[in-house]
Amino acid sequence: MKNYTYKCTNCKTEFTAEQIENEFIYLCPKCGKAEKNVPLEGVLTIEYDYEDIGNNLQREEFLKLQPGKFWLYPQLFPVTLNKVEENILNRLALPTDQYLEYEFNNNKIFLMDETRNPTFSYKDRASSLIALKAMELGVDEIAAASTGNAGSSLAGICARLGIKSHIFVPKNIPDAKRIQIQSFGANIYIVDGDYDNAFDLCLEISNQKKWYNRNTAYNPLTIEGKKSAAYDIFIYTKGNMPDNIFIPVGDGVIIGGIYKGLTEMLKLGWIEKLPKLITVQAKGSDALVRYIEQNSFTYKPAETVADSISAGAPRNLYMAAEAVKESGGLAIAVLDEEILTAQKDIANNFGILSEPSSASVFAAYKNLVEQNKINAADKNLLLITGNGLKDISALERWNKQPVVKSYDEWMIEIIK
Amino acid sequence: MKNYTYKCTNCKTEFTAEQIENEFIYLCPKCGKAEKNVPLEGVLTIEYDYEDIGNNLQREEFLKLQPGKFWLYPQLFPVTLNKVEENILNRLALPTDQYLEYEFNNNKIFLMDETRNPTFSYKDRASSLIALKAMELGVDEIAAASTGNAGSSLAGICARLGIKSHIFVPKNIPDAKRIQIQSFGANIYIVDGDYDNAFDLCLEISNQKKWYNRNTAYNPLTIEGKKSAAYDIFIYTKGNMPDNIFIPVGDGVIIGGIYKGLTEMLKLGWIEKLPKLITVQAKGSDALVRYIEQNSFTYKPAETVADSISAGAPRNLYMAAEAVKESGGLAIAVLDEEILTAQKDIANNFGILSEPSSASVFAAYKNLVEQNKINAADKNLLLITGNGLKDISALERWNKQPVVKSYDEWMIEIIK
Repeated sequence: MKNYTYKCTNCKTEFTAEQIENEFIYLCPKCGKAEKNVPLEGVLTIEYDYEDIGNNLQREEFLKLQPGKFWLYPQLFPVTLNKVEENILNRLALPTDQYLEYEFNNNKIFLMDETRNPTFSYKDRASSLIALKAMELGVDEIAAASTGNAGSSLAGICARLGIKSHIFVPKNIPDAKRIQIQSFGANIYIVDGDYDNAFDLCLEISNQKKWYNRNTAYNPLTIEGKKSAAYDIFIYTKGNMPDNIFIPVGDGVIIGGIYKGLTEMLKLGWIEKLPKLITVQAKGSDALVRYIEQNSFTYKPAETVADSISAGAPRNLYMAAEAVKESGGLAIAVLDEEILTAQKDIANNFGILSEPSSASVFAAYKNLVEQNKINAADKNLLLITGNGLKDISALERWNKQPVVKSYDEWMIEIIK
Repeated sequence: MKNYTYKCTNCKTEFTAEQIENEFIYLCPKCGKAEKNVPLEGVLTIEYDYEDIGNNLQREEFLKLQPGKFWLYPQLFPVTLNKVEENILNRLALPTDQYLEYEFNNNKIFLMDETRNPTFSYKDRASSLIALKAMELGVDEIAAASTGNAGSSLAGICARLGIKSHIFVPKNIPDAKRIQIQSFGANIYIVDGDYDNAFDLCLEISNQKKWYNRNTAYNPLTIEGKKSAAYDIFIYTKGNMPDNIFIPVGDGVIIGGIYKGLTEMLKLGWIEKLPKLITVQAKGSDALVRYIEQNSFTYKPAETVADSISAGAPRNLYMAAEAVKESGGLAIAVLDEEILTAQKDIANNFGILSEPSSASVFAAYKNLVEQNKINAADKNLLLITGNGLKDISALERWNKQPVVKSYDEWMIEIIK
């Protein structure tokens, strides 16, 4: 009997781990629905016996752990790891200096740098847990639908572990991201359609082929894997958590995961309150902002330079909205030109190449400070979720081809 | 009085640290020469009082240090760090899981993964030390000539520390690498000429403007910074060093640095013998291989897909040759098509996107095992020095645009 259960975030029904996992069920068997152009319904979440965990894992002991290795506290993850050797787990380790402190306009600012993860994005947190789960289940093929990063992440993590991956992508996938997926040796299926078509096709085929499915939000372990950042932040800050955490939102799985991790720490008595979760979207893809304002979901095709947070129907919308509300946070959207300026600011001031989606949080930070909605003297942590090298075309927009000059011309110009 | 001196690798004259550093001297004042299309002469190397260091720093204590942070053992580096705060140093930290163990053809194989360094290449080891040295010297502008990675590295490290960087590049710099340099806010100077012209211009202007100079091999701290990988390997292996270390060679500064670190560990009595250093070049850029065979240097313009190791006149040729000889190693060259195949092998088997220059070592490993010149059962460590995302055009060569099919077509094809 496993030490955790599954619970529907919608109808609240509980299921044993065996009921869900043995049948390869992902959404709630009672009310789950994965339909086109709407958020998922019946997303499952995993519940542990926090009292029991708290009795055996003390806060102060936990704070001594190395960050970036969730397998060091396996009691908080739905996977059995005792057959996996350490040298294999180490291939999934994140850097141990992700938490960086800088100054900006005379205030401290903190960054959580996910750009140097094994495949250079936050997605690795989910892919790693899911790949280990597949190994536990004895499944050696994993499938995912992706607009780019999730597929590249799953493909790379699977290559590290010797697992076969199948990635379903829409026709408009950027070349750079397609090449990353292919490079890792994944089978790639380009669907003549959009992300929704790829998502549906992936579900149908995974089901028939008995491939383990990593579709984001659909597989509850995507949220579970992404919660590890909350624990890492807890370790990095030695328990002195940030006041505000800025998080880019596409499908709402990162925010869902971090919120899950934080609420677990509340239950464990390790923190006293939730940091405010500030969710950031692009104006052209602001479903969460509109949902919170209007209290209902309306579909609008997304269009933004920040392709990794472009989502007309965020799959994990309802949990994302709950996270904002329960933490006393905010949901805001920023313009594409603000995102590109922020991408430049982050590279120039902090020496980090970020994806446009990640840069959105710095644009939001600047806006909110300017509007006095956030205190710059607070402990503000910005989540930088993806690497700018993954698609250099955005960087190219603000770096014009410079002039070429001869040796003598430069001598005159610089020395004069 | 500093605890180290400078010594010429050619005429063996010794100088105090003050003699060299106060005057911004880089090559030997007696015999140093930086001329076009030939290796540098009079490269300086830094000598410490190893007996004194060994008395105060025990092998077993050293092995407990965290890897990737050379500032934890400052007595082995020519820089004063006591005014630099820890949160600033942490911005320069390398990941702590660079040393990865895999299986290949039923043998263990070890990789040293430098692709997730702050700017995604080994060059950061040199740039970080040099940037900290500039801070110590009170210089807030640093210049370098570069074909791409070194410039991007210096620019990124300087952005992390708030230092101004000036990067001189040849006209044929790949767009992707130019964009990285610019993104970090460096001043970029594109010279209508080749790398040698950029090198000369950078020396002349740094001299006149009193900018600190990071030209590779020319500034002895580039070699010194790059020695830290040897110490990291020592920590990762708990002192059980590899039998063979495979190292890609362009200008010969990485091999020079690693050799320096290893010989220091010999002097400290921490290791008993040098691992064999296997240097790898591309056939189209094989100056070191030819130098070792013929015992004399001849210039030949370099041409290879592995742009980061393309060097007609390796600046640090003589030290590289000494490293091969003294360690009982080998110098070999591989074909461009072998390099591209190896790049694919590394991504597919190990989940790591490497630059062609880095992939060359895996091509060499396979060749040498096949020829029985290397025992696959030995402890073989391959240095993966740069990230494949830095210039995706090489990956593109072996990843063709795949077919696009409709939902129904894929269903039929996959399920049938």
